[in-house]
Amino acid sequence: MNKTIFVLNGPNLNLLGVRQPHIYGYDTLDDVKKGCAEVASEFGLDVRLEQSNWEGQLIDWIHEARTTACGIIINPAAFTHTSVAIRDALATCEMPLFEVHISNVHAREAFRHHSYVSDIATGVIAGFGVEGYVLATRRLCGLVTKP
Amino acid sequence: MNKTIFVLNGPNLNLLGVRQPHIYGYDTLDDVKKGCAEVASEFGLDVRLEQSNWEGQLIDWIHEARTTACGIIINPAAFTHTSVAIRDALATCEMPLFEVHISNVHAREAFRHHSYVSDIATGVIAGFGVEGYVLATRRLCGLVTKP
Amino acid sequence: MNKTIFVLNGPNLNLLGVRQPHIYGYDTLDDVKKGCAEVASEFGLDVRLEQSNWEGQLIDWIHEARTTACGIIINPAAFTHTSVAIRDALATCEMPLFEVHISNVHAREAFRHHSYVSDIATGVIAGFGVEGYVLATRRLCGLVTKP
Amino acid sequence: MNKTIFVLNGPNLNLLGVRQPHIYGYDTLDDVKKGCAEVASEFGLDVRLEQSNWEGQLIDWIHEARTTACGIIINPAAFTHTSVAIRDALATCEMPLFEVHISNVHAREAFRHHSYVSDIATGVIAGFGVEGYVLATRRLCGLVTKP
Amino acid sequence: MNKTIFVLNGPNLNLLGVRQPHIYGYDTLDDVKKGCAEVASEFGLDVRLEQSNWEGQLIDWIHEARTTACGIIINPAAFTHTSVAIRDALATCEMPLFEVHISNVHAREAFRHHSYVSDIATGVIAGFGVEGYVLATRRLCGLVTKP
Amino acid sequence: MNKTIFVLNGPNLNLLGVRQPHIYGYDTLDDVKKGCAEVASEFGLDVRLEQSNWEGQLIDWIHEARTTACGIIINPAAFTHTSVAIRDALATCEMPLFEVHISNVHAREAFRHHSYVSDIATGVIAGFGVEGYVLATRRLCGLVTKP
Amino acid sequence: MNKTIFVLNGPNLNLLGVRQPHIYGYDTLDDVKKGCAEVASEFGLDVRLEQSNWEGQLIDWIHEARTTACGIIINPAAFTHTSVAIRDALATCEMPLFEVHISNVHAREAFRHHSYVSDIATGVIAGFGVEGYVLATRRLCGLVTKP
Amino acid sequence: MNKTIFVLNGPNLNLLGVRQPHIYGYDTLDDVKKGCAEVASEFGLDVRLEQSNWEGQLIDWIHEARTTACGIIINPAAFTHTSVAIRDALATCEMPLFEVHISNVHAREAFRHHSYVSDIATGVIAGFGVEGYVLATRRLCGLVTKP
Amino acid sequence: MNKTIFVLNGPNLNLLGVRQPHIYGYDTLDDVKKGCAEVASEFGLDVRLEQSNWEGQLIDWIHEARTTACGIIINPAAFTHTSVAIRDALATCEMPLFEVHISNVHAREAFRHHSYVSDIATGVIAGFGVEGYVLATRRLCGLVTKP
Amino acid sequence: MNKTIFVLNGPNLNLLGVRQPHIYGYDTLDDVKKGCAEVASEFGLDVRLEQSNWEGQLIDWIHEARTTACGIIINPAAFTHTSVAIRDALATCEMPLFEVHISNVHAREAFRHHSYVSDIATGVIAGFGVEGYVLATRRLCGLVTKP
Amino acid sequence: MNKTIFVLNGPNLNLLGVRQPHIYGYDTLDDVKKGCAEVASEFGLDVRLEQSNWEGQLIDWIHEARTTACGIIINPAAFTHTSVAIRDALATCEMPLFEVHISNVHAREAFRHHSYVSDIATGVIAGFGVEGYVLATRRLCGLVTKP
Amino acid sequence: MNKTIFVLNGPNLNLLGVRQPHIYGYDTLDDVKKGCAEVASEFGLDVRLEQSNWEGQLIDWIHEARTTACGIIINPAAFTHTSVAIRDALATCEMPLFEVHISNVHAREAFRHHSYVSDIATGVIAGFGVEGYVLATRRLCGLVTKP
Repeated sequence: MNKTIFVLNGPNLNLLGVRQPHIYGYDTLDDVKKGCAEVASEFGLDVRLEQSNWEGQLIDWIHEARTTACGIIINPAAFTHTSVAIRDALATCEMPLFEVHISNVHAREAFRHHSYVSDIATGVIAGFGVEGYVLATRRLCGLVTKP
Repeated sequence: MNKTIFVLNGPNLNLLGVRQPHIYGYDTLDDVKKGCAEVASEFGLDVRLEQSNWEGQLIDWIHEARTTACGIIINPAAFTHTSVAIRDALATCEMPLFEVHISNVHAREAFRHHSYVSDIATGVIAGFGVEGYVLATRRLCGLVTKP
Repeated sequence: MNKTIFVLNGPNLNLLGVRQPHIYGYDTLDDVKKGCAEVASEFGLDVRLEQSNWEGQLIDWIHEARTTACGIIINPAAFTHTSVAIRDALATCEMPLFEVHISNVHAREAFRHHSYVSDIATGVIAGFGVEGYVLATRRLCGLVTKP
Repeated sequence: MNKTIFVLNGPNLNLLGVRQPHIYGYDTLDDVKKGCAEVASEFGLDVRLEQSNWEGQLIDWIHEARTTACGIIINPAAFTHTSVAIRDALATCEMPLFEVHISNVHAREAFRHHSYVSDIATGVIAGFGVEGYVLATRRLCGLVTKP
Repeated sequence: MNKTIFVLNGPNLNLLGVRQPHIYGYDTLDDVKKGCAEVASEFGLDVRLEQSNWEGQLIDWIHEARTTACGIIINPAAFTHTSVAIRDALATCEMPLFEVHISNVHAREAFRHHSYVSDIATGVIAGFGVEGYVLATRRLCGLVTKP
Repeated sequence: MNKTIFVLNGPNLNLLGVRQPHIYGYDTLDDVKKGCAEVASEFGLDVRLEQSNWEGQLIDWIHEARTTACGIIINPAAFTHTSVAIRDALATCEMPLFEVHISNVHAREAFRHHSYVSDIATGVIAGFGVEGYVLATRRLCGLVTKP
Repeated sequence: MNKTIFVLNGPNLNLLGVRQPHIYGYDTLDDVKKGCAEVASEFGLDVRLEQSNWEGQLIDWIHEARTTACGIIINPAAFTHTSVAIRDALATCEMPLFEVHISNVHAREAFRHHSYVSDIATGVIAGFGVEGYVLATRRLCGLVTKP
Repeated sequence: MNKTIFVLNGPNLNLLGVRQPHIYGYDTLDDVKKGCAEVASEFGLDVRLEQSNWEGQLIDWIHEARTTACGIIINPAAFTHTSVAIRDALATCEMPLFEVHISNVHAREAFRHHSYVSDIATGVIAGFGVEGYVLATRRLCGLVTKP
Repeated sequence: MNKTIFVLNGPNLNLLGVRQPHIYGYDTLDDVKKGCAEVASEFGLDVRLEQSNWEGQLIDWIHEARTTACGIIINPAAFTHTSVAIRDALATCEMPLFEVHISNVHAREAFRHHSYVSDIATGVIAGFGVEGYVLATRRLCGLVTKP
Repeated sequence: MNKTIFVLNGPNLNLLGVRQPHIYGYDTLDDVKKGCAEVASEFGLDVRLEQSNWEGQLIDWIHEARTTACGIIINPAAFTHTSVAIRDALATCEMPLFEVHISNVHAREAFRHHSYVSDIATGVIAGFGVEGYVLATRRLCGLVTKP
Repeated sequence: MNKTIFVLNGPNLNLLGVRQPHIYGYDTLDDVKKGCAEVASEFGLDVRLEQSNWEGQLIDWIHEARTTACGIIINPAAFTHTSVAIRDALATCEMPLFEVHISNVHAREAFRHHSYVSDIATGVIAGFGVEGYVLATRRLCGLVTKP
Repeated sequence: MNKTIFVLNGPNLNLLGVRQPHIYGYDTLDDVKKGCAEVASEFGLDVRLEQSNWEGQLIDWIHEARTTACGIIINPAAFTHTSVAIRDALATCEMPLFEVHISNVHAREAFRHHSYVSDIATGVIAGFGVEGYVLATRRLCGLVTKP
């Protein structure tokens, strides 16, 4: 079995911890990575965290995950609502898939209420802040290491 | 500060662990309660878990939570999609509120894609199985015990 | 095999035979029960008829039917159009399910044209007056006693 | 009073009993006719059963029914959802009208959920298999022979 | 003629005067009752005020009103937007019916803009605070005592 | 503080008391004015009642109200559903605003169910006959004279 | 019986015969009046033709027609699609009402496909050029002079 | 130039003058033909009137009209709202085309408000009773004989 | 295995090559048949090409195809968008099914963008002119003769 | 060539500079006129600025512009969203047409997102404050004076 | 004339032949290229096949095609449903354009039923497997080499 | 304060001045840059103009603008209607933002009528040709240099 969990992040998430920290918190993607890796290591697994503002890059990483990962955690950010291409890429991966949103997207604009990923995901978590990544990692690890 | 977390469950969840266990799992609400209580006790908090098929009963419990709880975790089940009354009751509670769905509602019928609770919740978690309750408890405890 | 057919009736049907009898007829739920029981007894089956204005009560009866009935005939009345909870309860019952409407709902207001029960029912009958219950009983008996 | 009940059948119903009998059953339209005629004769009435894949033919028969029938039972099949012309023809007939569907149309594709006939029918029955014709005949006979 | 006006109140209205009094005012349902009774007594009529978070209870009271009241004033609160059952119950009452909303529902969320009661009510009043009950009582008394 | 309440009436209301009096009543706008003035004088306030079939005229009066009135009661009649210009004019007035409809607009054609005024009004009253004006006046007076 | 037919014309129709005559023709409203008067005189009736770009003016004329005309022919032009006020005014007139459009509105922009007048009109004629007025006059005269 | 005007009639119009004559009038299609022929002969033209309940027959006649008629008057009846095939057939005819409806379709059910013919017709006339055919004939003759 | 491919054509296609040849080309259905037969003969198969303006006729041919054809190529023309009956007939045929449109329907009116056939077809080809039939034949032959 | 640019302003814009100046700015329509005239004079052109709360008045001015102006700048304010009549009047003017909105209408209520003018305008400018008029004047002058 | 046909492929098509070959077949894009080139060479033309998961790359290639290709065959995959940018790029190319989908998109999720490319394409082919590319090449070659 | 204005251009705008110059004009992006820079220099500001067909590149530039620019002018072209990612990137920039469209998007296809940028922009300008950039620059400079 592959040992790596891919934690993929969509556009503008490189600004995490920088933009409006009083709202989104002071944690950066590095902190997210650390939190996830900590949990993963309890289960003997690794974490690879990536971020890109480029949809094509995210698709390439998902293709890479197809053969090298044991599960995917993705925060597609804005692409959640617009990218059929990312959905199709994810649908080719036969492994647990968790969708994470830092803020509660259901409380935001109407166009953020539809996700092209949710119905092919294993689970969805929103509004838990960056801890959502960590909790999703815990669940994913539990699933893939279940004997 | 109140020390109790209310974990409220809507209609048909009394059948949890009984109906189609190969799909929904063998855990019952008692197991859910145990899992949540375990986490809560780490933070010095208690859990009160209730279930009812009666909307009025759920509203009464939510009113009770207004003055005796420090947070609410609710799986409104079918009422998620139809009950403005439960929404309004929850909106009167000034405390963290987490919405839990055992299965991934986004992958089910279209009428399950809208929730009257999500936009007033702190966070939403779906498709994590009964572990969703436990992870929500962990998050809630973290929030209410943050100094 | 269970020997009892549940004949469940939703809100306001306690007024049957009392309210506007020139339109809805002079038959009461007692008459309905007699008509259904007569047919059921031809097949060696019993009938249990219940009515409630309380959604929670109806769900509790449906849960009871899960383990004690051989089939369900339900006239959900107003809950037809609004209750996902009753739908979900019925969906847990692995037995024939017939939906009955005394009047022709299709000829009434637009909001009565959608039913949360129909697509999980075995069959639907509307506009046959109270005889609809009796004809549904006949069909249900035929199905469950077919060798 | 006219003594004949018209039992009209729309497109593709000539294949009844031939196509996918494990689903639709082995009964043919001849069997349907026999079942209906048996009930009708109890009430001193006759049955005329017709089927056509041609909408115009069905309209002509409905016009014939206007002056020679005491009631109409129709399974418009696909025309249910598309034919205003059949609706208009039926609306000219001042006699009981029952709409029958062998399968439960409510559980099929969305475009089958609307009927141009239902709101001008006396009653509608769906998902009772071919027995739906027989039960509708029983109801119709009761109505037209009521003293 | 019956001498009693039923003043029925839906879910969460038991919190009136308690929750956010700076917005909804400090008046409680007891104050509402007093205000209405004062006006009614001018016309020689009584007031019976009830509140429930349980839809079934409200329906039962409406059925009681059918035979013992001369008019109904109802603030269905959240049930305004979701309860066909309450609508159907009210539609069985042949007496003046007034719908009251304390706040201006038209200025709130879109799902509060539709009422299942308004089109069968005699009149609707919203945004007049708790005085809306009193003004509705005045109108109702005028109508039922008009010689 | 300004002492005058503007009572503005939209198109076709000049026919009040003349057209179909068995439905709309025999009261004319003069009677309305008298009823409102009576109540206003209890509070030491005046009433200015105007009617026009010309949208521009109504807007000009609303502008006048901005600086000379203490509150506005408006029955925009047909303009309720079509005039953004009247809405915008009313929105410039910082004073209580009540929308009155003589008949119950919710029970009429669908295009009358939306109002461009309701969500910026203080309150809305419909279906109270011409007494609606008087009750609105009473509420408005109470609000503006509250110490 | 009143002897006058009102022929009312909405906004921009003063440009008839002036604007794009190769499309709309060279006839002016004066020509329309002559054509209609000619037909009316055959039946002993008069024609009064008016045009305004002001909705209020048209409403005032319709009110005048209520008591002095035997029928109304109206080309509401742009107001067809937007004026509930004109609709309401016309609805107060108990006499034949014909709606005329010079061009075929059904072949133009989607927003021209709905008319607030059509469903309360006796008849509608579109795409007959200015001859539509004359043909409507002929029909109207026939109706009001039928013994 | 062809000398014949086709006057085509869709389903159920064979019942004209027979069904509900107090509503639709006592004129039959024969009377319609006479009325149209009379007008046509003033212009040296003939009329061929046909009716069918069969869509295919109507299409065949329209194809015939393509090469032998100088214009088409059609009352597609129910096919107005459902037949793209008739629309496509009519669109192949390069000659004036008038759509006639005896009753005012705009005042009937919503599904009758859309016509597949109107936007490719020269003109549309509705609610003029059977005289609509005659007036359309007059207009058509004027158009095709204009030097 | 059956050796015949049915090439069925819907309404108005008899005009192919006759109507607007500068747009639709000069090829007639005979030419289509020749082109298809040529390809089919390469695979040892026959072609039967039919056209009708009558929906019922097309359904009858499809029923015939059920037992005598090895595949169906259909250009339902206008019936594409309106005929559930043809869809249902085609759905009874267990063989490859190709839908052909000569012009690019996606570039035409909105009502041509939905097809009742496409989702049950094997493949769809549009905008390839009459060559679309030939290419569909080639594909169909390949599929049914694949060893 | 005509030398005058019409700058037309719809309802409530007479309050510019008066109502909420901290939001809309302190400039009045007089200031707007001055700004536009200054630019126009650079190109040897004049400006005529008008404002009305009356739709009919605006239409009359547009008709005047047809023959005396070289271009139109219009801020239809509320009429933007409701007036087909103004659209039709503007469509008769064969000259450059610019639509101006002081605030950014796209950031306001949904009903302000549709304009009946935009698709027949040359250009649209919104959210530039009163400077939008001046910039539109500059563009318009450039267009009409281009050799 | 340019001699090259561009065969462009959107996101995830690099997995062709790799992912679920029992469904999509064992052919890879290399096989597609060979098949297309074979046909093209019959007509003296070349094929350039490209694939990218990056929308920007596809747009750049389309721009290149503008000046160096004689036609474009594109399978935009997921971008079919979301990319206006690709549509706009294709619209700048004055040459035949064919849209290919390997599977029958009409039989998949609703969001795949709309294409931003179809209405500007010459033709569309779906559900023909990878042979769809080859047939489109044949058609394209025929069109561009027609003398 | 930063001294640079970013002028960002979306997909296909590299073809400006090249594609259909008779429609879009002969100006290229270089000309746009010159025009904007000229105005900016009047205010002591610089212009940086960029164009990309790659959404990711545009997002990266917007992130760069966050810390180095004093304002953004963007013509997102096709991304206007599809890119939530660009919207989210722009929303992180606390500086004036102007949206420019060369042609009048409101007069084009329906899918171009919605912009994901407009409601977060300071202002929007469309249909002013390339001069729109220059006018937006003038406004932006005025805003950021206002003392």
